[in-house]
Amino acid sequence: MFKNLAKTPIFDGMPADEIPLFLSQGNYALKRYHKNEVIAFAGEPCEYLIILIDGSLRAEMSDFSGKILKVEDIVAPRAIATGFLFGKNNTFPVNVLANEDAQILSIPKVSVLEHLKSNELFLTNFLNNISDYIYFLSQRIYFLSVKTIREKIAQYLLNLSSSEKNQLTLPKSLSDLSKYFGVARPSLSRVFGELEKDGIIQTNRRKIQILDRRKLIKIVESGV
Amino acid sequence: MFKNLAKTPIFDGMPADEIPLFLSQGNYALKRYHKNEVIAFAGEPCEYLIILIDGSLRAEMSDFSGKILKVEDIVAPRAIATGFLFGKNNTFPVNVLANEDAQILSIPKVSVLEHLKSNELFLTNFLNNISDYIYFLSQRIYFLSVKTIREKIAQYLLNLSSSEKNQLTLPKSLSDLSKYFGVARPSLSRVFGELEKDGIIQTNRRKIQILDRRKLIKIVESGV
Repeated sequence: MFKNLAKTPIFDGMPADEIPLFLSQGNYALKRYHKNEVIAFAGEPCEYLIILIDGSLRAEMSDFSGKILKVEDIVAPRAIATGFLFGKNNTFPVNVLANEDAQILSIPKVSVLEHLKSNELFLTNFLNNISDYIYFLSQRIYFLSVKTIREKIAQYLLNLSSSEKNQLTLPKSLSDLSKYFGVARPSLSRVFGELEKDGIIQTNRRKIQILDRRKLIKIVESGV
Repeated sequence: MFKNLAKTPIFDGMPADEIPLFLSQGNYALKRYHKNEVIAFAGEPCEYLIILIDGSLRAEMSDFSGKILKVEDIVAPRAIATGFLFGKNNTFPVNVLANEDAQILSIPKVSVLEHLKSNELFLTNFLNNISDYIYFLSQRIYFLSVKTIREKIAQYLLNLSSSEKNQLTLPKSLSDLSKYFGVARPSLSRVFGELEKDGIIQTNRRKIQILDRRKLIKIVESGV
């Protein structure tokens, strides 16, 4: 268990054998959840730092009509909802359920505060964790704001590649990328096809070669 | 100056006359900027906590073609870019310029860390500040992801109102709301007009009365 915890970014740099002493300086609880058990409902106050030690969870949203939409799969080891523990609206933004049997460590907010004050490593890791999340959300907003799919892809490929390296591998599947961009998957495939037909890129599954970087930049500049 | 600082959410609860002692426990610098002077460029490392004490700033983005887009006006007193001080990508997401003569307090990251460790009030305020920003970004993503303008407006009005209170005042201008939704302003006005014509809402400038809450919920449910 402590070995798994030590792999969580929030314990980065803390040796596994120091974690028991760290935890004992505050309150914590270990819980087991079975498949499909609910860990938290959207809107519920977020009053514990929740760290998934073992197993996997899923984040789900339901709309006004009760339709369920999977947001994300969460694989151990990982701290979840760190960005929603503090602030005026410290509530879970989504439902969190167990995908399979899962083990969770939960630390009450007041103990989290004590750890943040007394352990600089934990403080830095925690701040890095929520700041990385802010960066992720900002990027997401950028791609959702950009109007055309062609422009989204062009900007995304330019971000992934560097001026010296025209070979890249998409870190997401087309399905995940379409969700990230907020567009339909078939439309995304179609535009990738168009860019290939236009001789701007060459694709081989997730491997992409940029053939004409100038044209990609032109797409971002002109928005078409 | 310390009175203005005490009004910044990041010093919430700290009496103005305690702030000098607080600041003296680390390094800090006071700087004056003139109109249109650059405080930070997008992509530059964010290594100081920057607090605008007096005056106003603007956040701008420029695209690949150099076209400038104003993102936000920032009015004193306010801490800026708190969410970009930590994390793997601790760079300014936007250009920051002075709109007029402005006074800025900057605290180097290493001193910010010391303050966070030694002052629980500052720690809590800082965490609340970046967590509120996460909540703001999450809401923004929600509205950008929702497909139709009708659905965006319906969800926005339902969030603002409560089941008992059908009167509400928009906290943003139509122009700001259209940017927030990522839609054109004329389209937004048109859809507000349609909702009024359909007898679902009644508008009087920023004051809005919900006439038919059931229909608003139906719009969110069906997405049309």
